[in-house]
Amino acid sequence: MPDSINPRIRSRVLSDRMMSTREAAALIKNGMTIGTVGTPTSGCAVGVFKALVERIENGERFQINLYASGPPGHEVDGLLTEANIIQRRLGQQSNGLLRKAINQGRIRFIDQPLGKYPERVRAGFFSRVDLAVIEATAITEDGHIIPSTSVLDAPSYVLSADATIVEINTCCPLEMEGIHDIYVPEPPPNRRPIPIMHTGDRIGHPYIPAGEDKIIAVVESHTPYASGEPSHLDSSSKAVAQHLMEFWYEEMGNQRLPENLLPIEVGLGSTTDAVLRSLAVSGLRDLEIYSGVLGDGVLDLIDSGKLRAASGTGLYLSAEGYKRFFQDIKKYKETIVLRPLDIADSPEVIQRLGIIALNGAVEVDIYGHVNGSHVPRGIVSGVGGGGEFAHNSFLSTFLLPSTRKGGTVSTIVPMVLHVDFSEHAVDVIVTEQGLADLRGLDPVERAYAIIQHCAHPTFRPLLEEYLERAMRERGGHEPHLLEEALSFHVRTDRK
Amino acid sequence: MPDSINPRIRSRVLSDRMMSTREAAALIKNGMTIGTVGTPTSGCAVGVFKALVERIENGERFQINLYASGPPGHEVDGLLTEANIIQRRLGQQSNGLLRKAINQGRIRFIDQPLGKYPERVRAGFFSRVDLAVIEATAITEDGHIIPSTSVLDAPSYVLSADATIVEINTCCPLEMEGIHDIYVPEPPPNRRPIPIMHTGDRIGHPYIPAGEDKIIAVVESHTPYASGEPSHLDSSSKAVAQHLMEFWYEEMGNQRLPENLLPIEVGLGSTTDAVLRSLAVSGLRDLEIYSGVLGDGVLDLIDSGKLRAASGTGLYLSAEGYKRFFQDIKKYKETIVLRPLDIADSPEVIQRLGIIALNGAVEVDIYGHVNGSHVPRGIVSGVGGGGEFAHNSFLSTFLLPSTRKGGTVSTIVPMVLHVDFSEHAVDVIVTEQGLADLRGLDPVERAYAIIQHCAHPTFRPLLEEYLERAMRERGGHEPHLLEEALSFHVRTDRK
Repeated sequence: MPDSINPRIRSRVLSDRMMSTREAAALIKNGMTIGTVGTPTSGCAVGVFKALVERIENGERFQINLYASGPPGHEVDGLLTEANIIQRRLGQQSNGLLRKAINQGRIRFIDQPLGKYPERVRAGFFSRVDLAVIEATAITEDGHIIPSTSVLDAPSYVLSADATIVEINTCCPLEMEGIHDIYVPEPPPNRRPIPIMHTGDRIGHPYIPAGEDKIIAVVESHTPYASGEPSHLDSSSKAVAQHLMEFWYEEMGNQRLPENLLPIEVGLGSTTDAVLRSLAVSGLRDLEIYSGVLGDGVLDLIDSGKLRAASGTGLYLSAEGYKRFFQDIKKYKETIVLRPLDIADSPEVIQRLGIIALNGAVEVDIYGHVNGSHVPRGIVSGVGGGGEFAHNSFLSTFLLPSTRKGGTVSTIVPMVLHVDFSEHAVDVIVTEQGLADLRGLDPVERAYAIIQHCAHPTFRPLLEEYLERAMRERGGHEPHLLEEALSFHVRTDRK
Repeated sequence: MPDSINPRIRSRVLSDRMMSTREAAALIKNGMTIGTVGTPTSGCAVGVFKALVERIENGERFQINLYASGPPGHEVDGLLTEANIIQRRLGQQSNGLLRKAINQGRIRFIDQPLGKYPERVRAGFFSRVDLAVIEATAITEDGHIIPSTSVLDAPSYVLSADATIVEINTCCPLEMEGIHDIYVPEPPPNRRPIPIMHTGDRIGHPYIPAGEDKIIAVVESHTPYASGEPSHLDSSSKAVAQHLMEFWYEEMGNQRLPENLLPIEVGLGSTTDAVLRSLAVSGLRDLEIYSGVLGDGVLDLIDSGKLRAASGTGLYLSAEGYKRFFQDIKKYKETIVLRPLDIADSPEVIQRLGIIALNGAVEVDIYGHVNGSHVPRGIVSGVGGGGEFAHNSFLSTFLLPSTRKGGTVSTIVPMVLHVDFSEHAVDVIVTEQGLADLRGLDPVERAYAIIQHCAHPTFRPLLEEYLERAMRERGGHEPHLLEEALSFHVRTDRK
């Protein structure tokens, strides 16, 4: 590469489209729909969005629709909410300010399984994406985009949008190049299989195909990946992990799981980190992770030498995790591949590989329906990527503590407040109390298994009484007392 | 073929294993798990199961576990229930006697999306299948089984069971040979894509690979396919079909659907038959059906010359339909392919082809959650094959009348009694009142769309009042009045 070429912006045409974040933010007009990516701790086009907020501070008034699955961090979702810029928000959310605005009805939030968005954006099911705003490591000589730490929906936004703004984050090492594998399925009905046969297979380009014509602005930012606390392993998480490990060994003993398990989907948080820690100190080898967003626990597992391959759509590490990752990026690149969200969450690939899905839940009912997103006063998160995994995995597993709020609220309830995953998508439930294997059980058997193995002893009598009264007074295949089914929530709500 | 070979039983070894249905039924022992197939109007091993019931009439006492997805007809589910033979029932059910026994807790019924069963049977997730009992057209010289009108789970039962009883139904014409396409995926994680690229593709064998060693008994029966009423097209079904056709034309106009639509999944009943009739008289061509069980409407569509290919797992025709089908079997064989249930309902193929899913529902709530199986006093059917289609289709559509019981019960309710398909798996809802396109709408927008377009005018004010009070008094992303959410059901139940 001659000296005169910027290694971050290798297209001369696009070098000429470099501008300040303020100039780029000025391209965003009132009423536009913007597609962007990033997780709460990295990969967001922070420069452009901060400059957008400045326009509000300078007295402008406008609103946009924001599509983002990551979800992006406070610098996007939080600041834009504070400035009242977001009218409609598709994707996933985890920011407190945004959540409050959604629950107050000030922002319209559309919650769908994340893996569904890319195809639906491409198919034109939602309002057209005017602008894609994407953080990147670099731009190739042909104007293709090398993402940074997230791929997520970026390929579909770039493909569908009228134009793209690329924000080069110089804090993202150039060595990120080569970790991404970008494959965009054709539209139906004439399309081929997604050719992933193994977790680590690479089937596409190391960049998002864009081309010089698509990119109307390039900005540079210097956004260190310095936020994010590592998760704390509490005793409840460790107990969940132990129950799960025992179950897996039993399944291996019964020839229902191979000796190296099957590729695992892991959510984020202390419980799944505890599972990954347990795997790291186990006798198991050649493990694989096929998941959405990858956390610190995946790095631990790679360091332990037990992980053969990890596939994800983005990194959501702690500040310490990014430091480790960037220091040893060559090593981690050998194991990790970052894919578009609809490939990371592909029903086809999930079923082909036979994923063991591990997802979290807000609450679970005695028959095994799972609420993954709501409390009595509103939504706390969203259905996330779990939908594709729960429905298409080899073994769909949900992990949660048996109580919340200092033991005063049971997460096992007669009927969940909101169903994200019906009983039909749930095989195994684990709390710190134990594990309920629901396969082949009818609803009443499931109820006894969940109450006896998963509910906290404090709440078992209440749940059993509900079940037995429902069987006696109402009967039916899945007995419920219509007037009391949500009584646990009414009580919680009054507290 | 030399004269001495029976064209129905071409293996000499297996000719020697021919026995009476009574002798074959005697092979079934107390506590065994039996896997069988058939739809309510055909494909069931009626001879063997009738002989099994005779054993009870002769004073024997025993019970079995029965796995069957079809579901099979009265001669299996009804008679075995009456004789108190079934202890545990996996699969699908539609028989009144069986339903009553399930709702009274006398039979343990396990309800899962039908497409999940074959792999789970092969993986050993349920109690081992001792015996497969399969109706067939013929047996090949190598002891492979040519199914009759149903494939369903048969390949997985035969593969997993210790032994198989084949019941040759001489009423099923030999010309059925060649309509089946049997492909069984390998176990995970080392498996290849299911190589179906188009609805009509054939990827496997025209028989169920069994082999002489697997088959311990062969019986002959003469069971005419003479039951089943054709569905009656009421004005409500016609109105649903008309709303749907208008929507499809609009989607084509907006370039969101191709001119020949996409392959369609259709359930059974008068509403879907009305849709197929509308397609048959439309200007559309080269249509495709990729579905579970195929009904009379598919024959109508073939006769109209507009259907390029139809894929299913079994036939569920009226008596008149079977007559038409068998008379013109050569013509219908050019268009129809019958596959195993997990291929007919494959998430991978459904997503690849971009299916338009049409499923029925018992009720729908204002936010778009769908109850496909329960009324206040128990289960009426099961989740069926709709699960894989609703979750993985290009457009997930639910069709239902806006009221039941002579207009006294609204099928649009504040909160469904039981969720089979969460809001995340529902794009479009159609009643005779109109069509609600939920794509890109937030929950409150969805609620207004469903109430205004789908609810019956009689119930709109009640539903609007609920929604508005919930928004005012409780708020949140998906507002509910916890103490009144199931009030519609409490009222219905008291009627």
